[in-house]
Amino acid sequence: MGKIVTFGEIMLRLSPAGYDRFVQTKQFNAFYGGSEANVAVSLANFGKESSYVTKLPENDIAQCAINELRKYGVDTKDIVRGGKRVGLYFCENGESQRPAKLVYDREDSAIAKAKREDFDWDKIFEGADWFHFSGITPALSQECAKITLDAVKAAKKKGMTVSVDLNYRENLWDADKFSKAIRELLQYCDVALGSMEEAEMAVGEGEGEECKDILKRFVEKFGLKYATIILRNRFTAEDVDWTAVLYDGKDFYNSKKYNIHVADNIGGGDAFAASLIYAITSKFSNQEIIEYATAGSCLKYSMNGDANLSSVSEVEKLMNGDGSGKVSR
Amino acid sequence: MGKIVTFGEIMLRLSPAGYDRFVQTKQFNAFYGGSEANVAVSLANFGKESSYVTKLPENDIAQCAINELRKYGVDTKDIVRGGKRVGLYFCENGESQRPAKLVYDREDSAIAKAKREDFDWDKIFEGADWFHFSGITPALSQECAKITLDAVKAAKKKGMTVSVDLNYRENLWDADKFSKAIRELLQYCDVALGSMEEAEMAVGEGEGEECKDILKRFVEKFGLKYATIILRNRFTAEDVDWTAVLYDGKDFYNSKKYNIHVADNIGGGDAFAASLIYAITSKFSNQEIIEYATAGSCLKYSMNGDANLSSVSEVEKLMNGDGSGKVSR
Amino acid sequence: MGKIVTFGEIMLRLSPAGYDRFVQTKQFNAFYGGSEANVAVSLANFGKESSYVTKLPENDIAQCAINELRKYGVDTKDIVRGGKRVGLYFCENGESQRPAKLVYDREDSAIAKAKREDFDWDKIFEGADWFHFSGITPALSQECAKITLDAVKAAKKKGMTVSVDLNYRENLWDADKFSKAIRELLQYCDVALGSMEEAEMAVGEGEGEECKDILKRFVEKFGLKYATIILRNRFTAEDVDWTAVLYDGKDFYNSKKYNIHVADNIGGGDAFAASLIYAITSKFSNQEIIEYATAGSCLKYSMNGDANLSSVSEVEKLMNGDGSGKVSR
Amino acid sequence: MGKIVTFGEIMLRLSPAGYDRFVQTKQFNAFYGGSEANVAVSLANFGKESSYVTKLPENDIAQCAINELRKYGVDTKDIVRGGKRVGLYFCENGESQRPAKLVYDREDSAIAKAKREDFDWDKIFEGADWFHFSGITPALSQECAKITLDAVKAAKKKGMTVSVDLNYRENLWDADKFSKAIRELLQYCDVALGSMEEAEMAVGEGEGEECKDILKRFVEKFGLKYATIILRNRFTAEDVDWTAVLYDGKDFYNSKKYNIHVADNIGGGDAFAASLIYAITSKFSNQEIIEYATAGSCLKYSMNGDANLSSVSEVEKLMNGDGSGKVSR
Amino acid sequence: MGKIVTFGEIMLRLSPAGYDRFVQTKQFNAFYGGSEANVAVSLANFGKESSYVTKLPENDIAQCAINELRKYGVDTKDIVRGGKRVGLYFCENGESQRPAKLVYDREDSAIAKAKREDFDWDKIFEGADWFHFSGITPALSQECAKITLDAVKAAKKKGMTVSVDLNYRENLWDADKFSKAIRELLQYCDVALGSMEEAEMAVGEGEGEECKDILKRFVEKFGLKYATIILRNRFTAEDVDWTAVLYDGKDFYNSKKYNIHVADNIGGGDAFAASLIYAITSKFSNQEIIEYATAGSCLKYSMNGDANLSSVSEVEKLMNGDGSGKVSR
Amino acid sequence: MGKIVTFGEIMLRLSPAGYDRFVQTKQFNAFYGGSEANVAVSLANFGKESSYVTKLPENDIAQCAINELRKYGVDTKDIVRGGKRVGLYFCENGESQRPAKLVYDREDSAIAKAKREDFDWDKIFEGADWFHFSGITPALSQECAKITLDAVKAAKKKGMTVSVDLNYRENLWDADKFSKAIRELLQYCDVALGSMEEAEMAVGEGEGEECKDILKRFVEKFGLKYATIILRNRFTAEDVDWTAVLYDGKDFYNSKKYNIHVADNIGGGDAFAASLIYAITSKFSNQEIIEYATAGSCLKYSMNGDANLSSVSEVEKLMNGDGSGKVSR
Repeated sequence: MGKIVTFGEIMLRLSPAGYDRFVQTKQFNAFYGGSEANVAVSLANFGKESSYVTKLPENDIAQCAINELRKYGVDTKDIVRGGKRVGLYFCENGESQRPAKLVYDREDSAIAKAKREDFDWDKIFEGADWFHFSGITPALSQECAKITLDAVKAAKKKGMTVSVDLNYRENLWDADKFSKAIRELLQYCDVALGSMEEAEMAVGEGEGEECKDILKRFVEKFGLKYATIILRNRFTAEDVDWTAVLYDGKDFYNSKKYNIHVADNIGGGDAFAASLIYAITSKFSNQEIIEYATAGSCLKYSMNGDANLSSVSEVEKLMNGDGSGKVSR
Repeated sequence: MGKIVTFGEIMLRLSPAGYDRFVQTKQFNAFYGGSEANVAVSLANFGKESSYVTKLPENDIAQCAINELRKYGVDTKDIVRGGKRVGLYFCENGESQRPAKLVYDREDSAIAKAKREDFDWDKIFEGADWFHFSGITPALSQECAKITLDAVKAAKKKGMTVSVDLNYRENLWDADKFSKAIRELLQYCDVALGSMEEAEMAVGEGEGEECKDILKRFVEKFGLKYATIILRNRFTAEDVDWTAVLYDGKDFYNSKKYNIHVADNIGGGDAFAASLIYAITSKFSNQEIIEYATAGSCLKYSMNGDANLSSVSEVEKLMNGDGSGKVSR
Repeated sequence: MGKIVTFGEIMLRLSPAGYDRFVQTKQFNAFYGGSEANVAVSLANFGKESSYVTKLPENDIAQCAINELRKYGVDTKDIVRGGKRVGLYFCENGESQRPAKLVYDREDSAIAKAKREDFDWDKIFEGADWFHFSGITPALSQECAKITLDAVKAAKKKGMTVSVDLNYRENLWDADKFSKAIRELLQYCDVALGSMEEAEMAVGEGEGEECKDILKRFVEKFGLKYATIILRNRFTAEDVDWTAVLYDGKDFYNSKKYNIHVADNIGGGDAFAASLIYAITSKFSNQEIIEYATAGSCLKYSMNGDANLSSVSEVEKLMNGDGSGKVSR
Repeated sequence: MGKIVTFGEIMLRLSPAGYDRFVQTKQFNAFYGGSEANVAVSLANFGKESSYVTKLPENDIAQCAINELRKYGVDTKDIVRGGKRVGLYFCENGESQRPAKLVYDREDSAIAKAKREDFDWDKIFEGADWFHFSGITPALSQECAKITLDAVKAAKKKGMTVSVDLNYRENLWDADKFSKAIRELLQYCDVALGSMEEAEMAVGEGEGEECKDILKRFVEKFGLKYATIILRNRFTAEDVDWTAVLYDGKDFYNSKKYNIHVADNIGGGDAFAASLIYAITSKFSNQEIIEYATAGSCLKYSMNGDANLSSVSEVEKLMNGDGSGKVSR
Repeated sequence: MGKIVTFGEIMLRLSPAGYDRFVQTKQFNAFYGGSEANVAVSLANFGKESSYVTKLPENDIAQCAINELRKYGVDTKDIVRGGKRVGLYFCENGESQRPAKLVYDREDSAIAKAKREDFDWDKIFEGADWFHFSGITPALSQECAKITLDAVKAAKKKGMTVSVDLNYRENLWDADKFSKAIRELLQYCDVALGSMEEAEMAVGEGEGEECKDILKRFVEKFGLKYATIILRNRFTAEDVDWTAVLYDGKDFYNSKKYNIHVADNIGGGDAFAASLIYAITSKFSNQEIIEYATAGSCLKYSMNGDANLSSVSEVEKLMNGDGSGKVSR
Repeated sequence: MGKIVTFGEIMLRLSPAGYDRFVQTKQFNAFYGGSEANVAVSLANFGKESSYVTKLPENDIAQCAINELRKYGVDTKDIVRGGKRVGLYFCENGESQRPAKLVYDREDSAIAKAKREDFDWDKIFEGADWFHFSGITPALSQECAKITLDAVKAAKKKGMTVSVDLNYRENLWDADKFSKAIRELLQYCDVALGSMEEAEMAVGEGEGEECKDILKRFVEKFGLKYATIILRNRFTAEDVDWTAVLYDGKDFYNSKKYNIHVADNIGGGDAFAASLIYAITSKFSNQEIIEYATAGSCLKYSMNGDANLSSVSEVEKLMNGDGSGKVSR
């Protein structure tokens, strides 16, 4: 198995500690993350060869982001340097009926201003088997949409597997633009994941509105090998139910459902994507794939920061039934 | 709509972080609050013109309290300077079956030692429409009881609306003294709020012991325009059910009930009072008034510190049904 | 009532704050604890004369451990100084489905390397009525097993009461060695406590596998005055049900059951042992004994650190029914 | 004496604690400051009526900046809301031979993108006697240069005193552009301050290169009432000598020289400007003016954050000779 | 050698971290100290039997103070419980030309309100050889002055050595009252220490104003065995020169002079007193006494908090000439 | 230029924050370092290909150490996994006359217990040009001494350059053993550095005791290409003078002398070694080599933690004369 390449934007996240609101805090905890970077970190953590591609300026904050990726074993040598700023977002934790609150400040970041010629995908994909991106990347700029298309085409040409986390963000673009862009990209994808709403936006209207109907249309429309939908019920800022369904074109596989007490609301879907890719590339059975993906993302919610720092053995212990939280001595 | 004046004591609160007990901590988090100051902050936060009146010494700790009020937009120019000390209290957070624990050190504070002549209510009330106080203020000293009486009389004379949060504190005075004092003050009030027990202490015995019976007697006895009772079920230090009833002399209005995970047990009632005043002065319907007041106080419990830092849009979003804690991007 | 002597190992515990994982933290919170030291601290906190015996090196970290014991009123004058290192363990808090994780680094600690001649039990036991130890101490080394045996024999000879917390740790020794060692020590014990699994390991197979059957065989086999079993159901890293049964050779006494939200998973059993000893030495009735022991340990879970810092009045308030977490003003 | 209006950009400053470098930190301390905002805070702190004008977006981070200004008593009601982002900069403290390091991320901030029509200077200047700005503001954008010119013209027309802190920043514009822009603005100024280098850039070449020569040409060229030059010798990141000279068109006034141990390198010049304005508007003698300005800025270096939080009595105590640091009980 | 008894007030000290000013901080570091309590802690730390006497209320904050004393090995069993509050003071660290700033809030503390009958000095002095107090204690209240007089008389009667640290505080009483009270107490003292100014206030005017003249008159007037004067030159908040002179009625002994970089300005004199008592009771030579006292107090300045936490070996290493700060491995 | 391999022990360092002493702290700051690991980090930071070799157990604390190395770009793939524990040391910062204090707990660490067969030097040295170690490594155990000898022999055989930092630690072995071991290893070295005392221990007695005499004998005795001696004058825990001399067998090169205010006393020599290696491998002139090495190590003292995090441009700026600490915007 060769390396897995992810491509997107890594941002500085600034969060007040604990239950403090923005106006109360004198300190921000700093994290570095982004949908695809979180996937890259989790995959490296699972022991996969993981390489992350983006564009970052030549300054100390960019270096912090790179160092954070290296710390977890992600290969950063294909990160292009240039541009002016690292995108950032402020994140206030939620609590009880008060939701987590995000203030984005990511416009004109180095990656949003990147050019197609910044990336030589043939070179980047040397030794790579898998390419992963999310619906956020093409939303960053028109040029980013083109770069993403370059990437999936190059990956396909090379016979790599391509996965996408739909990740629709309404503060980045409207639903129509998203649908149009993501459909073009999905032509080149083998594996896709998202929420019910996102999957519907991707496949458009059709017969049946149940999860299974949508998965079916999803796989058929884009010739996917695997499509998965995450089913999340959120009760309060810290209580979430989490389960998922996998469809391989023939059968549906449901995972266990977890009732999660949330430590940090960011990165659950990214952890799911990474766990899914890990399980598929590790030749798990289909039922194991969806169990591993769901258990992996469940564990993410118990951690601070954007990325899942669980080990394979921790995820396997949970998917095999030990969610009791018994002290591990 | 003119300014809303609140009058009381603002204290320095010293709390160990997280679950630490007093004997474990090497650091105290500092907050500045008090029942009426918390109302003033929340009202300013909701965009109302809010002025806070108290007496504070000429020292740096008093300046900290004033700065905290100013930070949230409260007008502090009518705060009288003089006296020796800022009252303070130590507050250990509760957890599970262990209750939050308060150690008060507020005796001989500047406001407790204040004199009637310190306050020129006619001047203070220039441009004001509403006066709010709580049952704590007259309990601080005999002179404070007189000052409060001066204030409500002056407010009434000027045609202002007067509201009171009954707020009985058994460590400040006994039930009889409270009943006697609060009844005299209630003669001048238009809006009152409190718990079942407090309302009963205010109205005395009568026919019927249900919430509605008491509200009825409450409104009739003191000629109130609105009386509200907060119904709280506490299960552990961090699990609370919270709902409220409003009576306008004709009809009863029940709010939704919230099951709250508590971040900080201080200031729920004060947040209710502020939200109630906001909703009344904003000409909400009676049902909206009680929903806004309950939702506003529910959100307070999700925050650190004494005062509710929610915005109007946050409260409205919750009262209109979105308590799911979905991340707000 | 004379002093209560406990004997074991006190370690430095290093924990990342809040939900941080080991690889994320730049700071460790430092606690000093160990099964028997936690019992000693809780007993001193309850107002008992409490003396703790161990061996610690002549360095600053050992001094920190001693100072922590002294802080809570534990007599440390019988701690032997010498050896090379203080044992330590790293503890990552759990959250939701992610369990707390412990990394031990206690080999070759001063107490593990101690010699029988280091301890003059007759001198240590002057003025003492009670000796407590746990199943961890004899597991530290073969010499420690002998020292423990010396201690219980000396205590018995002096007519003291001896209590043991079975505390089987599979990372210290295997089940067979544990059973053999603990059975020899139990010959000299009057009071024993543990989980169902630990009690079964101590008594071996027999008729009936219910809690009551085991308690019965336990008391009979070793001639105990009291045996108690803690029944714990763990749902996640922070949700635990907790109740206990006491058998005095005649009757069974069940405590209330508490549904606990856990702040810190370490030291629940130790808090139970200390509360049990407190209640027995304070001549509580049997029903009160088991209620006090269960309530005391329930409160431990609400605190950071290894030891229960509850006061007698806090435990009594909870055992008498007020677990509502109402703010204590 | 009426209010003093300042105009510029307030940014979020993010600083690692103590001696930590960017790549080491997991937390940023948050300050809100900017050259003119720092002047506004210091003046409010000295008891002057101080109003700050800028443009800030409608988001929580902007609200934090406004709250920080209000906390210290600055009037924020003329701040225009709109635009997309709050400018920010990262600041790593220096130590010994290692200099403090700043990474700016202020492009496209709300004020940099502001339009002339955003500001109604006649309305803003109602009740104002003094207008202060710095050389940074016209450097933010061409439109900002025009807005600044609008402001000084409106101020002059109204008979207000206008002061400028030259504040050349080579990362914002080149020396020629600066000289041209600042000379145009200086036509409307009464009071100017800066370093030797900045003053030379403003006046251009001429006879004599001593401080006094430059001050003379400076006053003459622009018809200033007062010109001051700060003379700073920096030895290491934390050791600075600091003195200043005032010229009133007739005489030169030298202040005492302070050898300063620096706690925070940001805002010394701004503190000088605020102290200078305070002393002039308080009708101090010329010698007192330069002593107060130098002592006030000396004290700034002893504090964290961008703004001088000294009181008038603290500055006067120092200018009158007590720099011994004797504990003030 | 028997135990050393100290008597005074222990307060909660609340300090912002690092260079933060009161108005900037959201957290106070908590220390527990007072002139005599600091002496008691340092003596226990040096291995002396040290007992501290005061009056403290029955609340959690008082318990924190007691636990802090116990932590360092001070005997607290003669502390009288009762009264209402723990005295406290706020302390802002100084830096460069900005002095440390103290805000006291100690009125009506339990000890200030204590009664003579609260203390049974004969019982307290059982097994004691030495009694130490400072000029602060009699200043707390008229009753405290009487209690102190009771104590010194009882100590004298018992043949104990009595020492006094003059410690004049102008915010507690005026110079005349101090002189009168301290002279009465000095009749019963054997050892006295203070600054030049304090010693002059104690002895009154006389021939010669040099340090030696004053020491001479001091010893003669009160029949002291030892009098010492600390000579401190303060340059800034963190730069202090520190030396001392001892007079034994015959000869003068000068200590080395230390140029100190100050970490915390509180408790230098108390550390001197403790080191002096240690050296005298350890039968050091007169030259060694003054060297130990000066070195011990020098080290205090390098530590946070009120009390000197140096060991005997650390002080001896410095007094024997190693002040190079070479890393101790 | 190929990669540079370093070999040694990386430990967890636990330090109380700021001026806190061990007995005062409730938190330890965690750093991961060791003489050779610090060299590896600094070299990676300078942009060199840097690979670190050691043995570490399979646990989370070892993973933390590895992640810290990876974060700064060090290649960790040749780290052998196995053994039981990560060595650690406690480090209390010094201040003024109080020295920094280290408590080691490194016995029986994985590397100290490593076996010769754990390391395949031919494989490790593939693609490597330089090998660096220090005198600490052979002191860890007799087997470690052998492993180090294996390494230098393999390096020599391969034609690599070998450098040694003498680094004598008297708590690890006595002077005789050190001299004997280091002399054997020096046979295989090309570059050596140390203090005067260490160099004397290595070369033994001879003619002349000046720095130059010793350097001469040093180079001659072991056939070195370069020998350097660091000359350090320490005045207090935070004031150090720092300069160095290089001898190339022909000429002596003296660096500038820096008067350093020390933020962290650990790792100055390691920073010197890394800077020296960087300068030599970058083909600097001899004078530049010694200036770069001295400037690089000077900057280390201004940072927290064990390793120098300076960039090449920062070192060059200082060696070229700008040590003024002027803010870098």
